[in-house]
Amino acid sequence: MDERAALADLADRLPDAGDDCAVVDQQVITTDMLHERTDFPSGTTRYTAGWRAVGASLSDVAAMGADATAAVAAYGAPSFEPDELGAFVDGAQEVCHAVGAEYVGGDLDNHDEFTVATTAIGTAADPVLRSGASPGEAVCVTGTLGRTGAALELFDSGDIDRANELFRFEPRVHAGVALRPYATAMMDSSDGLARSLHQLAEASGCGFAIEEPLPIDKQVDAITETDQERSELGVFFGEDFELVCTLPESDVPEARQGVPCQFHQIGTVTERGVTLDGEVLPDRGYSH
Amino acid sequence: MDERAALADLADRLPDAGDDCAVVDQQVITTDMLHERTDFPSGTTRYTAGWRAVGASLSDVAAMGADATAAVAAYGAPSFEPDELGAFVDGAQEVCHAVGAEYVGGDLDNHDEFTVATTAIGTAADPVLRSGASPGEAVCVTGTLGRTGAALELFDSGDIDRANELFRFEPRVHAGVALRPYATAMMDSSDGLARSLHQLAEASGCGFAIEEPLPIDKQVDAITETDQERSELGVFFGEDFELVCTLPESDVPEARQGVPCQFHQIGTVTERGVTLDGEVLPDRGYSH
Repeated sequence: MDERAALADLADRLPDAGDDCAVVDQQVITTDMLHERTDFPSGTTRYTAGWRAVGASLSDVAAMGADATAAVAAYGAPSFEPDELGAFVDGAQEVCHAVGAEYVGGDLDNHDEFTVATTAIGTAADPVLRSGASPGEAVCVTGTLGRTGAALELFDSGDIDRANELFRFEPRVHAGVALRPYATAMMDSSDGLARSLHQLAEASGCGFAIEEPLPIDKQVDAITETDQERSELGVFFGEDFELVCTLPESDVPEARQGVPCQFHQIGTVTERGVTLDGEVLPDRGYSH
Repeated sequence: MDERAALADLADRLPDAGDDCAVVDQQVITTDMLHERTDFPSGTTRYTAGWRAVGASLSDVAAMGADATAAVAAYGAPSFEPDELGAFVDGAQEVCHAVGAEYVGGDLDNHDEFTVATTAIGTAADPVLRSGASPGEAVCVTGTLGRTGAALELFDSGDIDRANELFRFEPRVHAGVALRPYATAMMDSSDGLARSLHQLAEASGCGFAIEEPLPIDKQVDAITETDQERSELGVFFGEDFELVCTLPESDVPEARQGVPCQFHQIGTVTERGVTLDGEVLPDRGYSH
């Protein structure tokens, strides 16, 4: 059974676990496990790993429209070299600092494979779930798409410094808080834009009509040659940790003013089906 | 560098991380990573693994005298068999239920080695730290010592059912809350009684004079032959997740009334040095 099927199997038993974070007493909490073989390509610095692992959890807090409070990390590795561990903590602290949260440490575990489990907590009296989108509303996305796909190409081609830089991202906590009064549904794009839209559609019982042009990152343009490659990295690849949300179309201009990053309307909410320029958009993306 | 040295190295950078939990805005948070090779002996059921992994984090919440709110787990494994995953969630839910917390799910990760990272959160307006013990006070411990050491012997000898039963434990959250008004310093005994006393002594700048008899679990008596074996499992082995605390000696009778488990005074706080029946008690125990 793969992760997706197993998660679906657990959904009935853990009703609080189906969103980006679980909600308990106006608090949100989320946890993620990342490890070397699948999440940290060769060349990823420990600074980038600390930043990105903690950032992935903070992105889930952002997706609830919550204020981020704190994060912890459990760090499993074959050895604890002070410079590696120190760089990891630097990255973890920096990404927390960027979103107003506090990094408060964690656990060390002697492990054969470099493995990191991060947890972030936040607060929101009225968190934004995935389930509130209604036909006629606007679908919007923060930032640009395809950074992580581009980063992996750069790791492959040996451009390690630029790859590390692209691999770090600012979790959209401030944007999520700014969107909270307007957003009817929200999640992060960690599984890719296409799959995220399908997940939002399923949770809200709606569809989406998406229209080009999409805000594909210019790094993607720089390393791709065909439209198909560009679309693969920008639409399907995932792990970009941008916010995908729905809100009344009339609120978009006002909402945009509070969002401290790029914010693009990419389509509208429909009754059913997920399309891109009128064609079916496959439910395909990054499986963690 | 081993875990202990690495933790000491980080202590200056992460002042919030030196206790059983970090404290942020009257909330406590703690995370632990456990994995098959070192933490789940052959024969450990997934039910026991879920119970014990989540219980380890809840025990840290207990050690702050905090009310436990919720726990999450990231579950890494080579495959996600529904019965194994279901049993893990059963165990996680049961141990949360036992202490009034809510298990709210987590993350799945495809990992070569069965690896679990758990995080628990709780609340306490005035959490009990490790640093408040004063000479003249009583040193007390909840429950009995040596259960985990005995469990490992039973796993080795093939008595798997009894071993699993001993390997599950009730985190002392209710005891911790009951002790909060009295305790001047507290931690859990996850590193063993001896090492825990040394850690409390260092944090509080004091010593301890411990006196036999210690509340060694009767399961330890059943499987050991010499006093040395008994002491090894009960005093040094660790991972028992009992609370070790200090409080004014005059408060012990009243405190005991609120503690819903065994509660023994095992000695007194001194100016310096950790002794057992007048002999130096070595700073030796279980290294995670």
